[in-house]
Amino acid sequence: MKHELNIWVVGGDLRQEKLAQLLAGDGHTVHTYALGQPEPAAGLAVEASLSHVDRADCVILPLTVSAGNGRLNAPLSPSEHPLAPILDRFSPRQFVCGGRIDGETEELARERNLTIHDYFAREELAVANAVPTAEGAVQLAMEHLPITIHGAKVLVVGFGRVGRFTAQRFQALGARVSVAARKYDQLAWAQAMGFGGEHLAHLKGWLCGYDLIINTVPAQVLGREELEDVKPDCLILDLASKPGGVDLAAAGELGLTVVWALALPGKVAPVTAGAAIKDTIYNMLREAGF
Amino acid sequence: MKHELNIWVVGGDLRQEKLAQLLAGDGHTVHTYALGQPEPAAGLAVEASLSHVDRADCVILPLTVSAGNGRLNAPLSPSEHPLAPILDRFSPRQFVCGGRIDGETEELARERNLTIHDYFAREELAVANAVPTAEGAVQLAMEHLPITIHGAKVLVVGFGRVGRFTAQRFQALGARVSVAARKYDQLAWAQAMGFGGEHLAHLKGWLCGYDLIINTVPAQVLGREELEDVKPDCLILDLASKPGGVDLAAAGELGLTVVWALALPGKVAPVTAGAAIKDTIYNMLREAGF
Amino acid sequence: MKHELNIWVVGGDLRQEKLAQLLAGDGHTVHTYALGQPEPAAGLAVEASLSHVDRADCVILPLTVSAGNGRLNAPLSPSEHPLAPILDRFSPRQFVCGGRIDGETEELARERNLTIHDYFAREELAVANAVPTAEGAVQLAMEHLPITIHGAKVLVVGFGRVGRFTAQRFQALGARVSVAARKYDQLAWAQAMGFGGEHLAHLKGWLCGYDLIINTVPAQVLGREELEDVKPDCLILDLASKPGGVDLAAAGELGLTVVWALALPGKVAPVTAGAAIKDTIYNMLREAGF
Amino acid sequence: MKHELNIWVVGGDLRQEKLAQLLAGDGHTVHTYALGQPEPAAGLAVEASLSHVDRADCVILPLTVSAGNGRLNAPLSPSEHPLAPILDRFSPRQFVCGGRIDGETEELARERNLTIHDYFAREELAVANAVPTAEGAVQLAMEHLPITIHGAKVLVVGFGRVGRFTAQRFQALGARVSVAARKYDQLAWAQAMGFGGEHLAHLKGWLCGYDLIINTVPAQVLGREELEDVKPDCLILDLASKPGGVDLAAAGELGLTVVWALALPGKVAPVTAGAAIKDTIYNMLREAGF
Repeated sequence: MKHELNIWVVGGDLRQEKLAQLLAGDGHTVHTYALGQPEPAAGLAVEASLSHVDRADCVILPLTVSAGNGRLNAPLSPSEHPLAPILDRFSPRQFVCGGRIDGETEELARERNLTIHDYFAREELAVANAVPTAEGAVQLAMEHLPITIHGAKVLVVGFGRVGRFTAQRFQALGARVSVAARKYDQLAWAQAMGFGGEHLAHLKGWLCGYDLIINTVPAQVLGREELEDVKPDCLILDLASKPGGVDLAAAGELGLTVVWALALPGKVAPVTAGAAIKDTIYNMLREAGF
Repeated sequence: MKHELNIWVVGGDLRQEKLAQLLAGDGHTVHTYALGQPEPAAGLAVEASLSHVDRADCVILPLTVSAGNGRLNAPLSPSEHPLAPILDRFSPRQFVCGGRIDGETEELARERNLTIHDYFAREELAVANAVPTAEGAVQLAMEHLPITIHGAKVLVVGFGRVGRFTAQRFQALGARVSVAARKYDQLAWAQAMGFGGEHLAHLKGWLCGYDLIINTVPAQVLGREELEDVKPDCLILDLASKPGGVDLAAAGELGLTVVWALALPGKVAPVTAGAAIKDTIYNMLREAGF
Repeated sequence: MKHELNIWVVGGDLRQEKLAQLLAGDGHTVHTYALGQPEPAAGLAVEASLSHVDRADCVILPLTVSAGNGRLNAPLSPSEHPLAPILDRFSPRQFVCGGRIDGETEELARERNLTIHDYFAREELAVANAVPTAEGAVQLAMEHLPITIHGAKVLVVGFGRVGRFTAQRFQALGARVSVAARKYDQLAWAQAMGFGGEHLAHLKGWLCGYDLIINTVPAQVLGREELEDVKPDCLILDLASKPGGVDLAAAGELGLTVVWALALPGKVAPVTAGAAIKDTIYNMLREAGF
Repeated sequence: MKHELNIWVVGGDLRQEKLAQLLAGDGHTVHTYALGQPEPAAGLAVEASLSHVDRADCVILPLTVSAGNGRLNAPLSPSEHPLAPILDRFSPRQFVCGGRIDGETEELARERNLTIHDYFAREELAVANAVPTAEGAVQLAMEHLPITIHGAKVLVVGFGRVGRFTAQRFQALGARVSVAARKYDQLAWAQAMGFGGEHLAHLKGWLCGYDLIINTVPAQVLGREELEDVKPDCLILDLASKPGGVDLAAAGELGLTVVWALALPGKVAPVTAGAAIKDTIYNMLREAGF
């Protein structure tokens, strides 16, 4: 970017708090609102009102923007913050961005002639977030398994971004990793990266060999039939967003341990996750001509 | 596949020879024509004519199909084989495939109502071929550099399939690897895989730090200006298909060593390359209902 | 081994419980005493007394054998078990082994003409235990750091077994790892494995760059002077056995987070740790002519 | 070191030539004799006689010092150089070093009251040399095998320095690597590093599964009996110094391809090898009080 900017960070969790600190550290003038009390730093001001937000070049809303019922997602703030009066304060000439924008919020923005640019929809943030997600999977596996990852037999279901990084991390720690995927080119990628590979359609019958099964596909790939094939002390980690990939009722009846882990980046590595959001917003600003 | 097939392998190099052996090893009846003298094996017959090719379920042409001037690509055969009379022998009910089919050959096929399915256009073969290509790059670097890969500073330009596997192999051998790419998400991938990353547009000015530069982009990314920045004992490997990515004239004037390596899979690992073609053709046959 | 053996597992924790199950799974006749209630299995009997221990070929005591004050280490048993009457039951023709045998226990054994072979003193068990120790370090780092291991700057102090595996695991997860060691050949090993290396004598002055410092040297290498150089949000993991390597008082005054993690294998991976003990005891039995 | 030194490099190959250049680059005054014509550089003088060698603080002889028959090992020099008159020129107050000093040379030195310190006997140089040796093994395997290293089944016999780095490199490139060793703790190391492991005594009977066998043990471990078990297209690399580990006569009769590769560091990476010698000599000088 050419200039130092006036940036407001409005709402959010530890990731946005870190983001604000990093932006100030890069020399921008940063104001936070509805965000808690970040450690004092040069160029960083905690605001009690939005009265001066009109001076902002860029406004950053949280990931996700809305906490439901038209309220800003602001878990670090003691009060509630309806979204409508907040959006009233912004102007179309400002660069407004946020993560995972729901229909209701989008409607509120449209009524005010605003565009909220979605940083969570950016491919580079999705890739960057796959790293803490994969590490979170490692941490959960270590916490729940009485065996080492080294030597464990691990199946990763799905081979998109999260599947790839997760499979790679477990392999790097000495696990024997297989990948189940639907497409031939994904299986070719898996093989070329040194994983065993099997077609997703034929899961049943060879699930019994695994100590750990990690799902990354947001569709029910581990139904009752497949789960009946899993050995009792196998751990199942579901990293897929809703609706997840595991028939939880069946797993419960079968006595299987399933950990459904959502939103790992913000939980296991908020500082790294905040830095990744910053990099992405910089890319968006650069593309917008800042 | 449901059945054992009658397969003809017509023309080709060591990869097709190995392919024929592997197909026979899987239980198919295999006939070769214009291919040389593979070691005798059960189920494998070397044919002197195409008179019985009408019984074939599947005909496999080489990669590439044509040697130019309407002739079959058959480097292992002592004689020349015009394509037209060969294609005359095939029937539309047979599954005919080949690799990298040029316009002239396609036209010959169309006139005879034939479709030649291109196995080289398949994503899974491209991925599988990226592995021997990356290994070929390692071998060439080892042969040409008086330093170990361990500790060498390596730049990989481009981060598609070949770029990814190549960067990973050099990193695995202890090199310090950076990646230059054009898109933000490719740079995010590079960073998440542990590589340094820089935007392709800003190559100039920081090329002087590398012991080895490997290009994978088939467009001139290393022009005179960039090459002037390269240190004299740096090795440049160009893995990109025509037109390549290096201004060879400028490199020559500057006294830089450039190795332009094409078609590495067939050269460094014909057996593996043949096996990859087999896997791909099986996928194609399965999709075609065999 | 040539024959199935009669083996008694006397006292211990989850590792010994798993060990008993694995031994039974290999076809030996296994009796447990003072060990809790392992899941029933063929060939595995839970005993309420030692009355038939005279039939044992091999007796396995826990790691560590003594809980202090002449009592058997038996955390899974509700009652206390003095060691003397237990040792009274064993005979010199039996193969008796245990882990980390203290002077008092050794004396008790000698009085009874018994040799307790120390499986914990075996190099192969020390190596095998370094793997769960390294994984435990990864788990603790993930739990305590708000950043990903990927990209973190990590210093490993000491480059013995635990140092090597720990450094390698963090590197495999994408951390930038340096090693501090005292001997030139250890530094050469570190460099050849791709780590930065610095002499242990010159720690001070460059500690400030690290996000995570892992000590494996059982001598105070991180005193007040060194700790003053560490940045406030750095995590210090001490994996060294007593007396540890960190001046804990100074660290406390400086507000640094130190986690002193002892006996990780039994905590993070009791099943794997039990299997490693089994392998080691098999090696000892083989060498003893069984 | 405290001061810039006057250093003479006497005899040697490309490694010593590079060594001389690196020493000059570090600010020392360097003279070469019987070494060829290194590129001119500040602080580097090519000498036609030893008349001023009395001013040297340190004299560096080649690796190996003697070419046999009492002659200096000087392959880059057009003339022959008897060792005796050369040693006459040195004084006991100078630090004289060389690599792999034979009995005859040692005797010549003793007669003149000289000690030739052996840099090749230093552990850190042995470790550093294991890296180019392992890379040389990779290069040779790539050149001789028609398959990719990725996916190849590789056996490494022996698990010392060279065995470890070699096994690790092949694993990093995607090979499935097993290790054969004699000691339980070496097998434990192999397993903890993710390799399959088998006892060296039981090689026969499971050698037939390998595409590549790499020996690092300088004793005949692959005799006729073992070789009869090897499959015909398996490549055998022998990295062991004399007498090597393979019965070459038997291998020849069986039609097996054996490559006996000696002194790889100087061949595949003379620059890296020269730098490693420099680091080692610095350590020796530091210990000697320079």
